[in-house]
Amino acid sequence: MNKEYTPKAEDRFTFGLWTVGNVGQDPFGDPVRDPMSPAAIVHLLAEEGAYGVNFHDNDLIPIDATASERDAILSSFKKALRETGLAVPMATTNLFADPVFRDGAFTSNDARVRAFALQKTMRAMDLGAELGAKVYVFWGGREGTETDVAKSPVDSLKRFREALDFLCEYNLDQGFGMRFALEAKPNEPRGDSYLPTTGAMLAFIETLEHSEMVGVNPEVAHEHMAGLNFMHAVAQAWEAGKLFHIDLNDQNMARFDQDWRFGSHTIKPAFFLTQFLESVGYENPKHFDAHAYRTSDAKDVRAFVRGCMRTYLILKEKAEAFAHDPQIQELLARTHEHDHSMNQYLGAYSPERAEKLKSLPLDRKELAACGQPYEELDQLLIELLLGAR
Amino acid sequence: MNKEYTPKAEDRFTFGLWTVGNVGQDPFGDPVRDPMSPAAIVHLLAEEGAYGVNFHDNDLIPIDATASERDAILSSFKKALRETGLAVPMATTNLFADPVFRDGAFTSNDARVRAFALQKTMRAMDLGAELGAKVYVFWGGREGTETDVAKSPVDSLKRFREALDFLCEYNLDQGFGMRFALEAKPNEPRGDSYLPTTGAMLAFIETLEHSEMVGVNPEVAHEHMAGLNFMHAVAQAWEAGKLFHIDLNDQNMARFDQDWRFGSHTIKPAFFLTQFLESVGYENPKHFDAHAYRTSDAKDVRAFVRGCMRTYLILKEKAEAFAHDPQIQELLARTHEHDHSMNQYLGAYSPERAEKLKSLPLDRKELAACGQPYEELDQLLIELLLGAR
Amino acid sequence: MNKEYTPKAEDRFTFGLWTVGNVGQDPFGDPVRDPMSPAAIVHLLAEEGAYGVNFHDNDLIPIDATASERDAILSSFKKALRETGLAVPMATTNLFADPVFRDGAFTSNDARVRAFALQKTMRAMDLGAELGAKVYVFWGGREGTETDVAKSPVDSLKRFREALDFLCEYNLDQGFGMRFALEAKPNEPRGDSYLPTTGAMLAFIETLEHSEMVGVNPEVAHEHMAGLNFMHAVAQAWEAGKLFHIDLNDQNMARFDQDWRFGSHTIKPAFFLTQFLESVGYENPKHFDAHAYRTSDAKDVRAFVRGCMRTYLILKEKAEAFAHDPQIQELLARTHEHDHSMNQYLGAYSPERAEKLKSLPLDRKELAACGQPYEELDQLLIELLLGAR
Amino acid sequence: MNKEYTPKAEDRFTFGLWTVGNVGQDPFGDPVRDPMSPAAIVHLLAEEGAYGVNFHDNDLIPIDATASERDAILSSFKKALRETGLAVPMATTNLFADPVFRDGAFTSNDARVRAFALQKTMRAMDLGAELGAKVYVFWGGREGTETDVAKSPVDSLKRFREALDFLCEYNLDQGFGMRFALEAKPNEPRGDSYLPTTGAMLAFIETLEHSEMVGVNPEVAHEHMAGLNFMHAVAQAWEAGKLFHIDLNDQNMARFDQDWRFGSHTIKPAFFLTQFLESVGYENPKHFDAHAYRTSDAKDVRAFVRGCMRTYLILKEKAEAFAHDPQIQELLARTHEHDHSMNQYLGAYSPERAEKLKSLPLDRKELAACGQPYEELDQLLIELLLGAR
Repeated sequence: MNKEYTPKAEDRFTFGLWTVGNVGQDPFGDPVRDPMSPAAIVHLLAEEGAYGVNFHDNDLIPIDATASERDAILSSFKKALRETGLAVPMATTNLFADPVFRDGAFTSNDARVRAFALQKTMRAMDLGAELGAKVYVFWGGREGTETDVAKSPVDSLKRFREALDFLCEYNLDQGFGMRFALEAKPNEPRGDSYLPTTGAMLAFIETLEHSEMVGVNPEVAHEHMAGLNFMHAVAQAWEAGKLFHIDLNDQNMARFDQDWRFGSHTIKPAFFLTQFLESVGYENPKHFDAHAYRTSDAKDVRAFVRGCMRTYLILKEKAEAFAHDPQIQELLARTHEHDHSMNQYLGAYSPERAEKLKSLPLDRKELAACGQPYEELDQLLIELLLGAR
Repeated sequence: MNKEYTPKAEDRFTFGLWTVGNVGQDPFGDPVRDPMSPAAIVHLLAEEGAYGVNFHDNDLIPIDATASERDAILSSFKKALRETGLAVPMATTNLFADPVFRDGAFTSNDARVRAFALQKTMRAMDLGAELGAKVYVFWGGREGTETDVAKSPVDSLKRFREALDFLCEYNLDQGFGMRFALEAKPNEPRGDSYLPTTGAMLAFIETLEHSEMVGVNPEVAHEHMAGLNFMHAVAQAWEAGKLFHIDLNDQNMARFDQDWRFGSHTIKPAFFLTQFLESVGYENPKHFDAHAYRTSDAKDVRAFVRGCMRTYLILKEKAEAFAHDPQIQELLARTHEHDHSMNQYLGAYSPERAEKLKSLPLDRKELAACGQPYEELDQLLIELLLGAR
Repeated sequence: MNKEYTPKAEDRFTFGLWTVGNVGQDPFGDPVRDPMSPAAIVHLLAEEGAYGVNFHDNDLIPIDATASERDAILSSFKKALRETGLAVPMATTNLFADPVFRDGAFTSNDARVRAFALQKTMRAMDLGAELGAKVYVFWGGREGTETDVAKSPVDSLKRFREALDFLCEYNLDQGFGMRFALEAKPNEPRGDSYLPTTGAMLAFIETLEHSEMVGVNPEVAHEHMAGLNFMHAVAQAWEAGKLFHIDLNDQNMARFDQDWRFGSHTIKPAFFLTQFLESVGYENPKHFDAHAYRTSDAKDVRAFVRGCMRTYLILKEKAEAFAHDPQIQELLARTHEHDHSMNQYLGAYSPERAEKLKSLPLDRKELAACGQPYEELDQLLIELLLGAR
Repeated sequence: MNKEYTPKAEDRFTFGLWTVGNVGQDPFGDPVRDPMSPAAIVHLLAEEGAYGVNFHDNDLIPIDATASERDAILSSFKKALRETGLAVPMATTNLFADPVFRDGAFTSNDARVRAFALQKTMRAMDLGAELGAKVYVFWGGREGTETDVAKSPVDSLKRFREALDFLCEYNLDQGFGMRFALEAKPNEPRGDSYLPTTGAMLAFIETLEHSEMVGVNPEVAHEHMAGLNFMHAVAQAWEAGKLFHIDLNDQNMARFDQDWRFGSHTIKPAFFLTQFLESVGYENPKHFDAHAYRTSDAKDVRAFVRGCMRTYLILKEKAEAFAHDPQIQELLARTHEHDHSMNQYLGAYSPERAEKLKSLPLDRKELAACGQPYEELDQLLIELLLGAR
């Protein structure tokens, strides 16, 4: 077949500095790959066809960098961006790695830590703005607990809200024009994280002063860690107008955070997700927040980068084939209603309508008798996915 | 010690007809206990000290009951309520057992099924209102999918919203004065349920026309099925003013829905939950949505009923002991801030405050050096829970 | 493409009476499909191309059937077998549905229940033998606990062993020539099942008097419920010579037992499993222990039956393509050793070899420098699975 | 109450160097605590009342230590042992941290890596023997895969067996008199580990040449990661005579490996485990393979150490109280059989016994009618655990 599946700018495929630059350290193992400079990562991504690159402040500028180190890194990073044409659509703050955040950043019991977290985020937003980022992601890696004995979840929510309200104003005040995207995760590194799912984040956003400025950044692996259907979470966010960004990767359900290559493990969910994003016209960045296996060497990291994008494009093609498969479409048409006889009873409430509906004779057993051909339909999908139709 | 732990009316302990009346059927086994009449359940609950009883329409009135059967059951149920003084604080609709709902009720692709679900709910609300229920619970047992090939999550959300908007109006129109409480569950009986967590429900509520009328009914087992911290979900709901009802039971994390006796498995989370409810002053019903083991006979079902309430009361006593334990309180005071020096930098945004905060010298390493005595504190809690202090 | 993927006798595809005959009852819902007679199921399976049919004693003969009812059913079942040529490769005992087994069958604390379980199993073995079954499966659905307060796991193991030792002798004594296959499941319907994984069963088997007669019947869904890699469990069983039977279906990891159509959810694991079974030459039955969605009607149940077999055959074809894909095979060759220089140090122990090996200069850093192209290889597999190469 | 719960030597409480010495690094965070020297850890443990200390080779001697560094460390460690009287009951090899093991140690596809792993283990065994260790633990942190595309599980089992057979001989040859204890874990750091449960390890052991020399080292957290009942796994190991060692800690079910303080989260399972170990007379070391929260400072690490031992001792006291609680014991006696009428039908097989049993009239419905008072019993246990009786 040998299709090319070449990524294009309009695919809006992005990678974080920390994804391609991941050195393979894990809780039981030392680094296995050499660090790459931000500029080198930019060139690698450009060569493989990505549209953009994202970063945490400390991916780009080490937390203890001097001013001159900072200038040198930044200048070389910008040069690489100019040379390659790569965009920086998203930036974010590392509020989890440093020991100062050991008990939380915005939700720390220590006001000085909260002040430091705000300060660090403002500075990181400045950096993001300087590089053109229009989406600013918040993942509160340390906002949670191992034991609820000492930290109040209600206080923590109030503190997290206070921080976001403050930073929304900062964004407005500085004229950055950024949108914020909140990223949920159920646990790890904390025993339990606050606001553990995309749903919880969506609810929390409605309590913010500038809720219109704030949306979500759902991540495949994070919803899978709670055993949830990722596409359903994405659909809720989309329907609420809040899908500002997305983290694509893969994860074998409830266990440690794996951040695998997109589509490398849960193929069917990856298809439904791709089909959803393409069908609704999602146009924000598609960020591959994943990293290569620890077994990979530098060459294999490139295979990982290409693989993320290729699999997305293959699944996109499958979604098109699905939309044009006559047998599938015929079944779908059959399983979806065309009966308009209920229109007079459903829809907006009126006392008359309610009365009519309450007394409408509906034969429950007749309605129940009719099954749905979902095994047939799902089997057709599986065969389409497997290239067997 | 021989404390009595006698439930009182102000404890607002309630049980559903289906919990005490559970006959022990499961996916692999036939019923093991005889059905009990609603009136008999009311008497049992009153004898054991419960405050109220809740029901699904078809717990009380079988779906195929004739009008005269209905009258007879209702009359005998009301008589039992009068005799015992039990309240009916909550009612709900069974939208999951009948084959007609096999592919969903409010989210079915079949408009006639949606109409039937609405009709059934209005009638069940009438019944609930007649019996004095002020909270109306919605658990959409069949609102989900096994495969996303045929049912659209976005359409499903829109349909679910349409139904709730309609029923809110019906509630207003009829002057029932009910509040709605939405109950989330991640899966079972469907492969994946829509709006799978309390967080997702809270977000969805904000999209309703009468969102002020609608809150949540979180259930221990359901959040545990997604591996989540139940108290955190409850705290988010409480902070949002949406904790209209609560389902207390127990569940050994990610597996089939167990609905065990409250506090019978996850003791520490049950403590944190009780402590939370008591400390914030939650006064809505505390509903034990649980059932006895399938090994239990009728006598043991009573032990189950008593056990739910006793354990809550014991944990409530522990919460009081915790609040008055000098060593614990001293540690808590130490781990919580008393430093007000940050007040000038935190709080509501102003450009000046942001500027001051950005340039504030904060010694990250010094802040990081100070650990928290959470092992010590948590161990004190464990010893308090075990009665060893 | 329109490939036929027609099942053949040598594929040894079998279904249980309870799988095709599943009426769609679940913990929250009533039956949705009409029961089918055993004979009707045999005809359906034959029409769809299955090789054989399996049964629990009470799938075929209801537990309260009279002698004449039994004779009538059996005669009509045998007639259907003769007419269709379907085999009965496996039989098993229902030791879980009846209330008598509410606290276990072979592991019940009640000696009379244990006696009844043995008696029922001997009678069911007689029936299985009469119908030609050569594999006899044991799934101890009720052998477990909700609380460990009352039942001893050590006593339970001893009782389970006593029962199996007894039944092995019965098998020998009666000359049935059967092999026993033990089926593990981590939980459901009990809170925790004893011997919860295929690994635990393999260990237990080694403690039996006739361990040579006893192997395992691993089931995809059951290992997935514990979040485990099913193929790894199968490989351990195979390597130990104990893979006497296999239950093919699908399951979305840690949650209630789903028993979905083979390959309908976890496509990649299903591929590895198929590839394994085909490559090692597994020739025992391939039993689809699955059932159609509750949304299915009778016609869709047939789609389910065909789908199980088709997906297996498609994946088998993929395994062949994998074995002949030059790029994949070249990479595999590269990642597998051809270096024989270590042969003198590895293998059977001798003091000399140990001494030589201990002092062998091995450059750890050099060895570590070389990564593996597993991203590249895995991406090739994904593309092969998706029909994109 | 102020009980002392002072650990004694006969409690055989041990800690690993890596547990107390854990510096709080995790996948998302840098170290937060200063490293401690092995000698300092020995003194700390002695002061807190531990019986012994365990180590990985590289906990004690860094992998790149020179001979003189090694001598200095060892000498200072031995001095500390002499001064404190602490034992070294167990030693083990770090076969997971170094990049050389990135694709496995004993199961690597690279024969040189396998040779290096063997060499490293022999040297580490020499060190363990020198320090008096009589149990040698094997945890194969890297023996697994992220994708099964490239590594054969059957080859891996054969290679793991070859290594263990070799090392058993080495143990014999050197006269170390050690027993090997294999430790299972379902995943992390690999996507899936081979031999993922204690059950799988027990089965594997039976295939070894010196199976009598090899047992298991079950760990609470590791079985919980698969959602399994840890005490059941321990009971199977004990009944098989294979409980050579045990790793006590805690873990909130299916998620990343938490290694929490013993009894700090799952209190009821911790009770059943303690009750089991005490009742069967387990006398091997009780190793706390846990570490303090990342929020802890050095002082809090001591609270963690004390807490592990105290909670065990409190639970041991609870087990004694349970054994002497008249109401509990009366219920237990009632739920356990005293009916000896079945003795003539159960037990060793004989054709006559089988015949008599097959025709024995047993009234299934009568047997089923009798439920078990497990809710009552379990509630008594909960109240005993909570100090409320």
